[in-house]
Amino acid sequence: MATILGSALPNIPWEDRPARNAEVVWRSPRNPIIPRDLLPQSNSIFNSAVVPFGSGFAGVFRVDNKKREMRIHSGRSDDGINWRIDEQSIEFITDETEIKKFEYQYDPRVCWIKDRYYVTWCNGYHGPTIGIAHTSDFVHFYQLENAYLPYNRNGVLFPRRIGGNYAMLSRPSDTGHTPFGDIFYSESPDMCYWGRHRHVMSPSHQWGWQSTKVGAGPTPIETTEGWLLFYHGVLTSCNGFVYSMGAALLDLEQPWKVRYRTAPYLLAPWKPYECVGDTPNVVFPGAALFDAPTGRITIYYGAADTVTCLAYTQLDDLLEFVKANSAI
Amino acid sequence: MATILGSALPNIPWEDRPARNAEVVWRSPRNPIIPRDLLPQSNSIFNSAVVPFGSGFAGVFRVDNKKREMRIHSGRSDDGINWRIDEQSIEFITDETEIKKFEYQYDPRVCWIKDRYYVTWCNGYHGPTIGIAHTSDFVHFYQLENAYLPYNRNGVLFPRRIGGNYAMLSRPSDTGHTPFGDIFYSESPDMCYWGRHRHVMSPSHQWGWQSTKVGAGPTPIETTEGWLLFYHGVLTSCNGFVYSMGAALLDLEQPWKVRYRTAPYLLAPWKPYECVGDTPNVVFPGAALFDAPTGRITIYYGAADTVTCLAYTQLDDLLEFVKANSAI
Amino acid sequence: MATILGSALPNIPWEDRPARNAEVVWRSPRNPIIPRDLLPQSNSIFNSAVVPFGSGFAGVFRVDNKKREMRIHSGRSDDGINWRIDEQSIEFITDETEIKKFEYQYDPRVCWIKDRYYVTWCNGYHGPTIGIAHTSDFVHFYQLENAYLPYNRNGVLFPRRIGGNYAMLSRPSDTGHTPFGDIFYSESPDMCYWGRHRHVMSPSHQWGWQSTKVGAGPTPIETTEGWLLFYHGVLTSCNGFVYSMGAALLDLEQPWKVRYRTAPYLLAPWKPYECVGDTPNVVFPGAALFDAPTGRITIYYGAADTVTCLAYTQLDDLLEFVKANSAI
Amino acid sequence: MATILGSALPNIPWEDRPARNAEVVWRSPRNPIIPRDLLPQSNSIFNSAVVPFGSGFAGVFRVDNKKREMRIHSGRSDDGINWRIDEQSIEFITDETEIKKFEYQYDPRVCWIKDRYYVTWCNGYHGPTIGIAHTSDFVHFYQLENAYLPYNRNGVLFPRRIGGNYAMLSRPSDTGHTPFGDIFYSESPDMCYWGRHRHVMSPSHQWGWQSTKVGAGPTPIETTEGWLLFYHGVLTSCNGFVYSMGAALLDLEQPWKVRYRTAPYLLAPWKPYECVGDTPNVVFPGAALFDAPTGRITIYYGAADTVTCLAYTQLDDLLEFVKANSAI
Amino acid sequence: MATILGSALPNIPWEDRPARNAEVVWRSPRNPIIPRDLLPQSNSIFNSAVVPFGSGFAGVFRVDNKKREMRIHSGRSDDGINWRIDEQSIEFITDETEIKKFEYQYDPRVCWIKDRYYVTWCNGYHGPTIGIAHTSDFVHFYQLENAYLPYNRNGVLFPRRIGGNYAMLSRPSDTGHTPFGDIFYSESPDMCYWGRHRHVMSPSHQWGWQSTKVGAGPTPIETTEGWLLFYHGVLTSCNGFVYSMGAALLDLEQPWKVRYRTAPYLLAPWKPYECVGDTPNVVFPGAALFDAPTGRITIYYGAADTVTCLAYTQLDDLLEFVKANSAI
Amino acid sequence: MATILGSALPNIPWEDRPARNAEVVWRSPRNPIIPRDLLPQSNSIFNSAVVPFGSGFAGVFRVDNKKREMRIHSGRSDDGINWRIDEQSIEFITDETEIKKFEYQYDPRVCWIKDRYYVTWCNGYHGPTIGIAHTSDFVHFYQLENAYLPYNRNGVLFPRRIGGNYAMLSRPSDTGHTPFGDIFYSESPDMCYWGRHRHVMSPSHQWGWQSTKVGAGPTPIETTEGWLLFYHGVLTSCNGFVYSMGAALLDLEQPWKVRYRTAPYLLAPWKPYECVGDTPNVVFPGAALFDAPTGRITIYYGAADTVTCLAYTQLDDLLEFVKANSAI
Repeated sequence: MATILGSALPNIPWEDRPARNAEVVWRSPRNPIIPRDLLPQSNSIFNSAVVPFGSGFAGVFRVDNKKREMRIHSGRSDDGINWRIDEQSIEFITDETEIKKFEYQYDPRVCWIKDRYYVTWCNGYHGPTIGIAHTSDFVHFYQLENAYLPYNRNGVLFPRRIGGNYAMLSRPSDTGHTPFGDIFYSESPDMCYWGRHRHVMSPSHQWGWQSTKVGAGPTPIETTEGWLLFYHGVLTSCNGFVYSMGAALLDLEQPWKVRYRTAPYLLAPWKPYECVGDTPNVVFPGAALFDAPTGRITIYYGAADTVTCLAYTQLDDLLEFVKANSAI
Repeated sequence: MATILGSALPNIPWEDRPARNAEVVWRSPRNPIIPRDLLPQSNSIFNSAVVPFGSGFAGVFRVDNKKREMRIHSGRSDDGINWRIDEQSIEFITDETEIKKFEYQYDPRVCWIKDRYYVTWCNGYHGPTIGIAHTSDFVHFYQLENAYLPYNRNGVLFPRRIGGNYAMLSRPSDTGHTPFGDIFYSESPDMCYWGRHRHVMSPSHQWGWQSTKVGAGPTPIETTEGWLLFYHGVLTSCNGFVYSMGAALLDLEQPWKVRYRTAPYLLAPWKPYECVGDTPNVVFPGAALFDAPTGRITIYYGAADTVTCLAYTQLDDLLEFVKANSAI
Repeated sequence: MATILGSALPNIPWEDRPARNAEVVWRSPRNPIIPRDLLPQSNSIFNSAVVPFGSGFAGVFRVDNKKREMRIHSGRSDDGINWRIDEQSIEFITDETEIKKFEYQYDPRVCWIKDRYYVTWCNGYHGPTIGIAHTSDFVHFYQLENAYLPYNRNGVLFPRRIGGNYAMLSRPSDTGHTPFGDIFYSESPDMCYWGRHRHVMSPSHQWGWQSTKVGAGPTPIETTEGWLLFYHGVLTSCNGFVYSMGAALLDLEQPWKVRYRTAPYLLAPWKPYECVGDTPNVVFPGAALFDAPTGRITIYYGAADTVTCLAYTQLDDLLEFVKANSAI
Repeated sequence: MATILGSALPNIPWEDRPARNAEVVWRSPRNPIIPRDLLPQSNSIFNSAVVPFGSGFAGVFRVDNKKREMRIHSGRSDDGINWRIDEQSIEFITDETEIKKFEYQYDPRVCWIKDRYYVTWCNGYHGPTIGIAHTSDFVHFYQLENAYLPYNRNGVLFPRRIGGNYAMLSRPSDTGHTPFGDIFYSESPDMCYWGRHRHVMSPSHQWGWQSTKVGAGPTPIETTEGWLLFYHGVLTSCNGFVYSMGAALLDLEQPWKVRYRTAPYLLAPWKPYECVGDTPNVVFPGAALFDAPTGRITIYYGAADTVTCLAYTQLDDLLEFVKANSAI
Repeated sequence: MATILGSALPNIPWEDRPARNAEVVWRSPRNPIIPRDLLPQSNSIFNSAVVPFGSGFAGVFRVDNKKREMRIHSGRSDDGINWRIDEQSIEFITDETEIKKFEYQYDPRVCWIKDRYYVTWCNGYHGPTIGIAHTSDFVHFYQLENAYLPYNRNGVLFPRRIGGNYAMLSRPSDTGHTPFGDIFYSESPDMCYWGRHRHVMSPSHQWGWQSTKVGAGPTPIETTEGWLLFYHGVLTSCNGFVYSMGAALLDLEQPWKVRYRTAPYLLAPWKPYECVGDTPNVVFPGAALFDAPTGRITIYYGAADTVTCLAYTQLDDLLEFVKANSAI
Repeated sequence: MATILGSALPNIPWEDRPARNAEVVWRSPRNPIIPRDLLPQSNSIFNSAVVPFGSGFAGVFRVDNKKREMRIHSGRSDDGINWRIDEQSIEFITDETEIKKFEYQYDPRVCWIKDRYYVTWCNGYHGPTIGIAHTSDFVHFYQLENAYLPYNRNGVLFPRRIGGNYAMLSRPSDTGHTPFGDIFYSESPDMCYWGRHRHVMSPSHQWGWQSTKVGAGPTPIETTEGWLLFYHGVLTSCNGFVYSMGAALLDLEQPWKVRYRTAPYLLAPWKPYECVGDTPNVVFPGAALFDAPTGRITIYYGAADTVTCLAYTQLDDLLEFVKANSAI
């Protein structure tokens, strides 16, 4: 039986699947768990990243303020559901003045690798690129060099070295509301220089929900069946983009090789808080917690570019679904 | 007094106009009558076509599944409101392999002509064109040749031959979210070869709701005043397309001649289920039932490209409105 | 302490800030105060202008009818909240036949200058430009020459002459859903010929909510700190435009010089009636009443291009906020 | 050895391949053979069609006048090189008033089928579609029904019935400078109703010169190896479209099946008269004469949307090249 | 017989129509009369304005330098053909600092009104608008207020007051390569404030060369038949814009009323210097000299946005042509 | 006096500045030195790279064949002017199958670093990116990993390590005819992993010729004044892009710091072979030879995306010009 190659997290936020619900991924009835106005100056809090931390949880949150500046903030929670988010955005520590003067930050991910947490985010440096920092306490964040040249978004680290190197997924873009997007894979020996870029997956014209672009979501989860990657796919309707969520299984040692990938979506904008907001019709996964022994997986996703929500799945059901509905 | 030149349908789904409602077309309070998740794998069920069948009703339904593949499904109902829709999409019967390999189907219409039902739909054959099939039982569907070259949508048959020929309305398009669209009329002696194309009507810059494009909706209803055609009109706001419904009266023997056409819309996206969904702000009529003796007309329309809804009107009130508010 | 240089309006529509609300501008819980279907043929009533009149209030209202023609209508109210709007749109009086044949009117403003009310609006004369009329009774409206060449929108008069001239703000545009927009200032000795055009303010790339375009809202309010201008700013998301409201303080004698301007917005589309409607995500201020002695300001704004709403603020709180959050 | 299944034309315009020229298709040094100002009111004469007629040649010519109206004119020549073109455009004879009121005509082709010449052209009927007429004398042209619904261009008839039906290639389009274009095949029993539409070929992303769109050129030439079709392919540079010429061999009885198709172009804009003019960088073939016994083929093509030119090829060399460089 | 209501200019640059040339407007064989590199730092010299001055001629010239900055320069000539152009661009004299800081200037016109020369040009003030200055010596240029709000181009003054006011034609635009453009008329009592705007003419979908936009060219010439206006019209090919020249006759006292307007163009890009250059396919008239007694008219036009050229016409022939080919 | 920090090249191709020519960069009168049809199957040969090699010269050439496939070919020359180019494109040697399967290659540069030649080019790997290979003999080319993620173009190596690392300039792009483009700088310890990305320079709205995008041209030349970088700048006219050439001086040790940059261009499309061809109006520098003792610099540039040309400059004159006309 497939298992997660990872730790136990007995206090994972969890709600069982409702009785009449047949979906492989189900929403929390408490959604949205983080409202847009949690902070006095927040316009919206979404597309955020959460990890176990101490006896509870910590996270890095995208907070757009009422100036509609995009910033990322640190936060903490005892239960993963009720969050205390710093009113001030993260002030990154670096001696490199050129790197420090970023224009915006958004859509963070957090990944524990060996001995510390790494944060990656969309960093404004003459266009969007992938910023990287590390922290051990969610108070001090040490910023490293940007991983890539602009223009790039959705940089997602793997939680261990692969072939001896750090590894990252990303979605190269243009300077605006990019109407295309493939997922690529890159490696680095030192978190400074990146190379060995490999193509992972493209949009699919056949399955409409992922026909415009695709981008990695939470940190991939290592399982006996491969890396479990939740990702977003985008459809272009006559009224704009629609963001949904799917999943893929990537080869454990050559993660640019996609073993399975869901033809149907797992979650799409159906609920009012997903359909109405600053950007209508957005479901955007950014983090996932798991409890290896039980196979429980809890997904944090942004809704309508406005609020933060939770959804749940069980590893076994999910892998069965992914394999049964794969379209490689 | 104007009458419908057609049959009685005493069991037509019907709800009287609410007391305080002064509209010529009014919605069912039971809307949406078909929810998006009626089928286990359905993402949305909308833009569908319904006809009297036996003692009840049958229909062909646009079902987008969770892969966001667009397919059409057969369904049946006792009352026209509660529907049983096949989980499998229609498998069309044809010996012509080239025709069989369609890429998608959507927005079906159904029309009884003489001795059988004809289904027309937007058929993906190297681009969208008009597919045709006939059925007598809503189980076996025999596919004919596509009517036209791509790129075309909204092919709507007349329920009898005109001037000895079959007749169809359609809306030629481009390959994407077409920002233009006129209704044209075509004839065929045999449902295989089509010609004698005539222009019927264009968008109107003056009446904003129909200023971007117009397309035929349900099968035209023959009345003593002409063919009653419900149609959709599209407005382009700064946030995308808005689809509303109007009506026209076409000459009985030269249906490409428009006798009357509503300057105001009859129905526009006002209700939450019309304003919020996969495509916000869509009212898209696809079928109409009528009871000739009473003049009752029941319109099936898709809402927000997500669900199926009902609206009602009375022939006399409607024709009076159409004539009084015409803008030819 | 800052005060409004204007009259008392003891009967100003007013609701105190709710207890737990910390916003400098707060909404009326009665919103929308004017529903879209107030008139039998109205599709939407929004982006409208209100002034004190006699013992009550009068206004000029944008009413899009069900043909989606854009017209402006006169209306009256005892309390500023419950409105009687004429079913017929305003028929402007002018001998100049060339000016009379306008194609549409929308987004009116009303401004009392010395001895009469002036109405300005977006007037369709071979493209959108700024129409001007005056009235003393809200029954007879005398149309003057259009102020500018097309293409222009959001013409807003100052309530007194400046440097001996009439003065107007406007936002030059293109012929469609203009993706740019600065506020300019112009003067006229006689309300017929306009010149001495000055640039006032541009969109700001840094503060996203006003990064696409900005346009003047209500008639500027004269205060001891400068002209208080509420204005709209527009953000372009991947799903279209989002309209929010901010405020600026302009120099009293050289109003093209911006003294303060809010980096954050004051009001943005958060409520269902602002997020859902004919144009989702629109907050568009068009008029403001004030009571000089108390510093109460009541703002009328259009929501979702569909309905009319109220919001409130206190002069002192507002000016403090504007200065503290300015980004000149 | 491959031969043309057709007649002898000993007086075919001909110039041998220059000594040092290794190209399979070579230009006439007399190009352009028809200057843009051959007629007093002509702005340009190009994209025209020529056939043997009596002891000489006749043709139908696209003439854009100085109003930049697009019209087609009849012409005659003794040698196929020096042309007398009527100053008046063709006045088509038809009783069908709806068909008669066309808005423009351009890019004609002429095809002899059995007992008369058929002219097809891009006909403006509420958008571009394919007009058809027949003539026996190039003086009287009897207009038939338009073949298809708009929007379509480059309708090219086959010179004999196929499977008992008339057959035509065409390139469905949109309403403007269409950025896409496939060649389709249609049949008609009677030149009035058309159907049995089949896809023939698409642009090729790999071979840049035909990566945007492809369209049929001259009447296909029947050979023992299949229908020889010259066609245009379009590349989109950062400065617009570039039109070049290739060739394909279609199955004799199922002409929608492409047997061979040139990966390289045969002729592209290299000469000043092809690179400079009303539309820079256009080579657009519209007609071909052949002399079956010798295998000589003379191609008429429009250059830069301005003038008419000649190029030559030999059947054997050409077929060898097409097969050797095919990319099916 | 029609005559020019103006002065004699016996030394008008002139070349008779070549023997075989039947055109109503003919080019100078000396074209281009001003090469692109006349000045050491000039990239191009075009779209310029010329008037009689003293015993010779003076002019204001658009000179784009090698930075591709757009500037206007003063120049002088004895014969109107050989020009001495100042190396430094005009430094306008004004006390109004806000007006002085323009970003660019281009496409000047010069017009003598009563007692001085007025220069109008496209002036960069937060977007393109119409700058105005006057001079008596082509050395000192006194800048006035900009006539209009941005965005506007091609401001052309009438050479006398009309109805007591100064009068100007212009073509409102957007901020870029505007794909639309009508000619409007405005009046001013004082060259400072402008109003009484009237629509003059729109592009014509029927006559392709003027189907995208139209703009006034040289100062209108007063004739007994009306104001003779040369104007440019623009066609959009798949490879960009094509600029040609036509003429209109405007009512003498109500110049916004078009009496005649050429359906065919008078001059279009045919010559290499018109077809090849910084912007291929541009003929853009900017000035005209006339000799009233002989009816000789000499037109200065920019070619390919690169060089300056001359063309000639005779009043009688021209008016006959305009009337005979009018399309009002 | 400024000198080139490099070798002598006494046999550098050279022609003195013509007597009357005052330009700092002047063209070879032998242009184009490589015609488009040098190879039997070449459509065009341009944007190519040349270096001293043995007693003569070697190069890597962009050759688009008549399929309009983009390939790079090796070539050799005795004098740098007359070239022998291999008919077959370069077959790169690599064991890495994923890297090998490129879709296209274009716009190569060649750079000698320490002990071998490095070739960089635009490499099609799921979009354009920067390919790298090295060679010692221009026969065997060993391909390395692509430097960056797509989408990128114009990768240009520095001829020595900087701060211990290899260094490269590049211009991130989108997937098409990118309407933006900045030059960035990146470093690599090993030619495999790249990082420490720094922004170098952006387009300039003020100097039109470089207002749309800028990209590095030849390998930077080390001088006592800094790295001499020739670069291309792009202007967007209403008829498409115009490519010109400028120069910059970059800091020797921090090459992302621009010391000087030409406000005017050095070379722009003026000659017929630059203005007419597959892409009109292109001057695109790709390589430069220099002779350090004399300061002679010979620039190879592509013209009209069709042919290869030469231009010359003298270091002293050039640096004086760059400094005198700088616009940092």
